[in-house]
Amino acid sequence: MAPLADLYQVSMAYGHWRAGRQRAPAAAELFFRRPPFRGSFALGAGLAEGLRGLRAFRFSAADVAYLRSVLPSTIDDAFFDYLATLDASEVTVTAIPEGSVVFARVPFLQVKGPLLVVQLLETTLLCLINYASLVATNAARFRLLAGPDMKLIEMGLRRAQGPDGALSASKYSYIGGFDCTSNILAGKLYGIPVRGTIAHSFIMSFRCLEEVQPRGLQGLPGAFSRLDIPILAPEQRGFIPWSISVASSGSAPAAPRSPDVGPQGWSSSAGGVSPERGRGAEFPPLLLPPLWDQPRTQGNSRCQHWVMAKSLPTRSPKSSTGRRRQNAQLWGGFRVFCLFSADFHQLPPQRGHRFPSLLPQLVEVNGSPCLKLTEDEEKMTIPGMKAIYRLYDAAGHPFMDLMALEEEPSPSAGQELGIRVLGRLEETTKVIPTTVESLHRTYFRDGQVCEPLPSLPEVRTHAQVSLNLLSPAHRRLHEPQPYPVAVTERLHQLFLELRQGS
Amino acid sequence: MAPLADLYQVSMAYGHWRAGRQRAPAAAELFFRRPPFRGSFALGAGLAEGLRGLRAFRFSAADVAYLRSVLPSTIDDAFFDYLATLDASEVTVTAIPEGSVVFARVPFLQVKGPLLVVQLLETTLLCLINYASLVATNAARFRLLAGPDMKLIEMGLRRAQGPDGALSASKYSYIGGFDCTSNILAGKLYGIPVRGTIAHSFIMSFRCLEEVQPRGLQGLPGAFSRLDIPILAPEQRGFIPWSISVASSGSAPAAPRSPDVGPQGWSSSAGGVSPERGRGAEFPPLLLPPLWDQPRTQGNSRCQHWVMAKSLPTRSPKSSTGRRRQNAQLWGGFRVFCLFSADFHQLPPQRGHRFPSLLPQLVEVNGSPCLKLTEDEEKMTIPGMKAIYRLYDAAGHPFMDLMALEEEPSPSAGQELGIRVLGRLEETTKVIPTTVESLHRTYFRDGQVCEPLPSLPEVRTHAQVSLNLLSPAHRRLHEPQPYPVAVTERLHQLFLELRQGS
Repeated sequence: MAPLADLYQVSMAYGHWRAGRQRAPAAAELFFRRPPFRGSFALGAGLAEGLRGLRAFRFSAADVAYLRSVLPSTIDDAFFDYLATLDASEVTVTAIPEGSVVFARVPFLQVKGPLLVVQLLETTLLCLINYASLVATNAARFRLLAGPDMKLIEMGLRRAQGPDGALSASKYSYIGGFDCTSNILAGKLYGIPVRGTIAHSFIMSFRCLEEVQPRGLQGLPGAFSRLDIPILAPEQRGFIPWSISVASSGSAPAAPRSPDVGPQGWSSSAGGVSPERGRGAEFPPLLLPPLWDQPRTQGNSRCQHWVMAKSLPTRSPKSSTGRRRQNAQLWGGFRVFCLFSADFHQLPPQRGHRFPSLLPQLVEVNGSPCLKLTEDEEKMTIPGMKAIYRLYDAAGHPFMDLMALEEEPSPSAGQELGIRVLGRLEETTKVIPTTVESLHRTYFRDGQVCEPLPSLPEVRTHAQVSLNLLSPAHRRLHEPQPYPVAVTERLHQLFLELRQGS
Repeated sequence: MAPLADLYQVSMAYGHWRAGRQRAPAAAELFFRRPPFRGSFALGAGLAEGLRGLRAFRFSAADVAYLRSVLPSTIDDAFFDYLATLDASEVTVTAIPEGSVVFARVPFLQVKGPLLVVQLLETTLLCLINYASLVATNAARFRLLAGPDMKLIEMGLRRAQGPDGALSASKYSYIGGFDCTSNILAGKLYGIPVRGTIAHSFIMSFRCLEEVQPRGLQGLPGAFSRLDIPILAPEQRGFIPWSISVASSGSAPAAPRSPDVGPQGWSSSAGGVSPERGRGAEFPPLLLPPLWDQPRTQGNSRCQHWVMAKSLPTRSPKSSTGRRRQNAQLWGGFRVFCLFSADFHQLPPQRGHRFPSLLPQLVEVNGSPCLKLTEDEEKMTIPGMKAIYRLYDAAGHPFMDLMALEEEPSPSAGQELGIRVLGRLEETTKVIPTTVESLHRTYFRDGQVCEPLPSLPEVRTHAQVSLNLLSPAHRRLHEPQPYPVAVTERLHQLFLELRQGS
């Protein structure tokens, strides 16, 4: 398979090669210009896949032959021979660990290597990391909205951009805090717990109550096993299929923890999280009601991932905003709560919001920092290879990310720092961090992944830890306090010099 | 690889199996409830991939073992043995040819087979056909907006849902009428012409004009070859890289057809369409301007496909709506036109519109038609296996799609038909079609594709032919006239009987 690359990258590579700059040392970075979903943060995800893409980066003989056939005949033939020699063996990648909270304008990932290869890798990395980070971020926002106890299921397979778009959605929504997926393949490949509800077509395949066999809730404890569910709720069309599914799945949830938990048997703990606990016990697969009475919003498939959640009858659903309490239905003492549609834009308060995507940016060539000049200060780049620090306050919340030149000494905890905050660069700000964390680790060197990569559940746990560290003001979904990002005085000086020199 | 299936499908399959209904003959169909993008039509696409998915449909021993491990332990073991025997060998699929215009509520595809298998196939078909049809439809709308001459490039690789989402976008935007893609892999796999512009990072890698070498437009005819492009336009920062790219690609377009065509050399014909014509001549890869001054809207990545188009200087861009003429820039006598962002929602007049997705619907079980009862007439299903006819008027435009029971004789051209139009079922309407086309063909039978599948360029051509047949009132992008869909009197009677019987 050819590298994930756009033709213009190859054309630019030719430009570099013609100018003899192909091996000029270069550095580039990926970052969000603005936080997605009108929040204050993103979750960085897709790193492991991006690194795999890097390791596999190579133009095969067939790829080169193909490029020869489509590029202009005037292109120097030696260029194609050169393409065939390329790989990522001279590339170094540093990044924030996968699942970490990342902020706008702070590089999530930095790539160093020969200019030509660094530019060719842009699309590979963006394709594997951009969507991953957006899905994980959105999932994290749903988790914050739903609170820690509610179960969140990703059910996007039917509406994704084909099989691997769906697999990515399952994986990265799990990382972001979802509990499970309906996608069997994602369960099989990644060990994500699989769960589901029932489809319209199942309901429609029963034309009358007599066709419903068996009718009791077999295998359930106590009185439930003796109920004739179809008779019990003949008027409640929407719920008959629900009882059918309980009956015909024959599932046997563990004995509920309290008498009012009932056949749904969902635990109020986050017990469905671990893939090892999949086997039927607390969370039988067929226990959500059918989707007859979906609100119109469900038809919204812009991002094409549904989410459903259900709470226990004894707990009324809580969320950080208190909104979206629709679709709470009461039946037989059980409150069934569905959070419809994980459309990226629907989670309040971001309706209609356009979310940004990751940007790649060249920051250094031949040892000289690059600056993108633009009228719009927000669009200016921060030049040079950087070290990134997260500064924590006494309460343990991160309060600022600080970018420094790579060669600067790292700031110390308890030390007063004079820094410049992006957005008000004209003034110096003094801060004293209680703790300082160096964010980037080196993940790729000499063509190999050089840092152990955590498992999927580990990344998922790290994401929740990372989110929980945020102060409530930065974490909230609705009009969060912007998270300040700063540069050191030296980095600011470099920026000024470059701007003056242009 | 496990079939593309959701867990709830397997659970429902168990429900059928427990009830002894697994082999009940059943029929289901896929359709849009409403046309996407506020248009009147969709393009049906993804059929070939859907059929491949059907042929491959099978639970391997490993898949079955996995399902055993995640489903409740109370499930009868014989069910898993049964799952291992399943394939699509008893399934029949009829569909409208890929690339055809399809209308809301008219089945694009019908599946017949054993109930349990038909329901298991739902997700496979939706996953492979839904996104394909939406991309192709959106691309067709851009083609209508841009007119026949403008070149449209798909550049979504960086923002897609991973590699195969990007490949699907390339393929189905090509089917819908785009000319080319920036995605090298899509070019290599599908023969789609590959083209591109240049990235920010290429521009940023040059820090001064002196670094730009070579500086002329080598290989170009006439005066262009003697220009020193960087000197020519020192103030026009946005265009220097453009000239650099021309220079360093060394491309040599064919002699322009008219003196004012210049170095871009784009033909005003649709000459870039055929993949066989890729080699440099009319449409060199590096001749679009950089994206420095993108409007804000470009940041919109909800559907994540950019589109760019460029017109010849002597022709002012035309479109069916006359809008979106921004970004037309004039330089050295060349008009460069960029249509930014193929966001599904941005093409006027559909800003902010939520597009529907394909729905699956069971229409018959055990020889009895199924009806979905709902308050909302729009959501009612049309029961039974159907034959679908497209009725044409004397001008050659389709004016109505007609659904009939499979066993009804087909309507004849020139014959007066008494039909019921959906949305006003209470009255009979008389129509006399000049031509009648039977829309569905049988594509899959006995586990095999049984109808030759057209090549990608053939599907693309068919799509344009199908679109061109539409009357201007139905084809227009802004507030099109709704396309009427009708049922025969017999189908309507069946509907009434079923509704009464419920």
